[in-house]
Amino acid sequence: MRSCEDRIYLDNAATTAVYEEVFDAMRPYFCGVYGNPSSQHAFGRAAAEAVTRSRDKMAVALNIYPDELYFTGCGTEADNLGIKGIALANADRGRHVAVSAIEHPAVLNSAAYLAANGFKVDYVFPDSRGVVTAQAVKKVMRGDTVLVAVMSANNETGVIQPVGEIYDVVRSGGAFLWCDCVQSAGVLPMSMFPCDGFALSAHKFGGPKGVGAACIKRGVRFAAQMSGGHQERGMRGGTLNVPGIVGMARALELSIERSAACASSAAALRDEFESLVLGGIEGASLNGGADRLAGHSNISFSGCDGQNIVMLLDMRGVAASAGAACAAGASSPSHVIKAMGADEGRVRSAVRFSFGAGNTRDDVAAAYAALKEVVAAIRRAN
Amino acid sequence: MRSCEDRIYLDNAATTAVYEEVFDAMRPYFCGVYGNPSSQHAFGRAAAEAVTRSRDKMAVALNIYPDELYFTGCGTEADNLGIKGIALANADRGRHVAVSAIEHPAVLNSAAYLAANGFKVDYVFPDSRGVVTAQAVKKVMRGDTVLVAVMSANNETGVIQPVGEIYDVVRSGGAFLWCDCVQSAGVLPMSMFPCDGFALSAHKFGGPKGVGAACIKRGVRFAAQMSGGHQERGMRGGTLNVPGIVGMARALELSIERSAACASSAAALRDEFESLVLGGIEGASLNGGADRLAGHSNISFSGCDGQNIVMLLDMRGVAASAGAACAAGASSPSHVIKAMGADEGRVRSAVRFSFGAGNTRDDVAAAYAALKEVVAAIRRAN
Repeated sequence: MRSCEDRIYLDNAATTAVYEEVFDAMRPYFCGVYGNPSSQHAFGRAAAEAVTRSRDKMAVALNIYPDELYFTGCGTEADNLGIKGIALANADRGRHVAVSAIEHPAVLNSAAYLAANGFKVDYVFPDSRGVVTAQAVKKVMRGDTVLVAVMSANNETGVIQPVGEIYDVVRSGGAFLWCDCVQSAGVLPMSMFPCDGFALSAHKFGGPKGVGAACIKRGVRFAAQMSGGHQERGMRGGTLNVPGIVGMARALELSIERSAACASSAAALRDEFESLVLGGIEGASLNGGADRLAGHSNISFSGCDGQNIVMLLDMRGVAASAGAACAAGASSPSHVIKAMGADEGRVRSAVRFSFGAGNTRDDVAAAYAALKEVVAAIRRAN
Repeated sequence: MRSCEDRIYLDNAATTAVYEEVFDAMRPYFCGVYGNPSSQHAFGRAAAEAVTRSRDKMAVALNIYPDELYFTGCGTEADNLGIKGIALANADRGRHVAVSAIEHPAVLNSAAYLAANGFKVDYVFPDSRGVVTAQAVKKVMRGDTVLVAVMSANNETGVIQPVGEIYDVVRSGGAFLWCDCVQSAGVLPMSMFPCDGFALSAHKFGGPKGVGAACIKRGVRFAAQMSGGHQERGMRGGTLNVPGIVGMARALELSIERSAACASSAAALRDEFESLVLGGIEGASLNGGADRLAGHSNISFSGCDGQNIVMLLDMRGVAASAGAACAAGASSPSHVIKAMGADEGRVRSAVRFSFGAGNTRDDVAAAYAALKEVVAAIRRAN
């Protein structure tokens, strides 16, 4: 196993380490309390009690009813359940859907699925700061709009979207608002979240990979997307991932407890990094000049290729990302920066740095030094 | 947390404890090697290498190509992917599907989804021993049959299905065969499995909950069911559950290593239990009189209600199951025993006992004594 202990991780937006406390909370549910929560006997009840406690804990943290939570296998599944599920179950009210152009592939491809299945899909573009305004949403709304999807904060730029204002527009248009909160959960306060449903993923806030949740408000009709047993009130078959759910609930609780402290420390590191980079590296420009999540920094470097920067930074022990990890395999330039109206050079040279709980001021200095070298080397080679 | 240490677990078919060795294998991937396997930097590559090693290990164990594996969040998701995915992608070849009447709800409800979306679905009934014969499959095949689904072994009775013979019939009819191997994986030998695709779930063979796999043969067209990022060759979006995948691969490897020893010990305990029960409790009759998985025993008790037996056994410290856990919440009598042609009393009084690695001869004696008492008590009260 490759050790990464001496490396600098500036990709906390892609995934986070599981908090030690979260691992400790999950641990008894692998070999010890291993029952199937659907079983009626003591082994099953012990597992079911752990799920219920976790569901209740999350409901308190999110200020929702426990039965508004549907546990899933990841954030992508939660987005699929919300978007396809709500649109398909309410198709009698209309077959028009609007999604922002800067959504995660889970949302964009769920919308594409709907487009291939009889829905008309419109895309809402952000302004140059990366903000999808309520005004812009209003423009695409139609009489037959059944669902709008705008994320809580963008995963590449960290730009926070005006979901409250958007919800007013969507609601008065008689549609539902779906909100992908995968990047913001545990960072932004979640209580009284202004939408009809949202998606979470545990591994973005110190929980384990392989577990997420869709929260869908009582009264909102939706169709199950995974056909199976009676689990999750018949809306999501499959044996519940007991340790994963326990871990997700504990991680959410911890993230919220720590969010103020984490955010101010991540923001301080991010701000220090940005002032070094924007002041010290020529041709560096910030993408997403609006209110952002604390740890996110997305910067373009004129004349460079973002993938090359990431590769050369990696060789110097610094982990950053060109585009999001979920799109990285495809190595296509960012659809997010492009949607903000940036020119091709700026799109291709965008790099995301995301600071988190494990980072220090030394990381900032070292990452800046490496980045300065790398950008200079690439420009020399061009 | 409720302790179950002094209790007897005869519900290994519902779920198993994670093997200690599996937990040890997973452990480094929570807090240590935590990268997103889609990330290009060292943290991501370390995670991706673990996934690749696990995929290769499973491919060897299953005698398939590594790229025939698609990791999912559970067995149910794998069944959905295979059944909906293959049928929908090949609908140009026909819109008829046949599934056995004794399938898991993941399969039956995927078929019901197809029925609601333009497919005609026929159900193939088993004989009174619980076997779905190739003959019976042949009878429902039509010129436009695109997919047949028959499980490898039934989850309630343990009855092993003649998948090889069925595959001959299905193939010569020009259709695909999907095989739910969730109950049999790690118990029956899997190599050269005769079908076009099959589903696995880690928690049935000593792995963790929250991870499964669909294996779909090269050349078989199928449609992704979860829209998202590029993961799993674009066929299943969502960040890969690295510790879960590592655990599943290790569990499969261990199960196969131990399968001969485990099977003979589970079968010995099961046979001892059955000879006690069938010889010592009047009105007890075995469901599924054909070749079975080593640990399964499904017995009806005339004049009793299976749910009551399970409840009273639980009060005496013995965990068994009426129906499968996935259907138990619904507390409806078993569709499996019913499909075998049993009368209502026999269906309602069926109880599944499933023996596994952790059971002993003392468990057999104690469970038999408790069962004898419970059945007598229920009959007295009637």
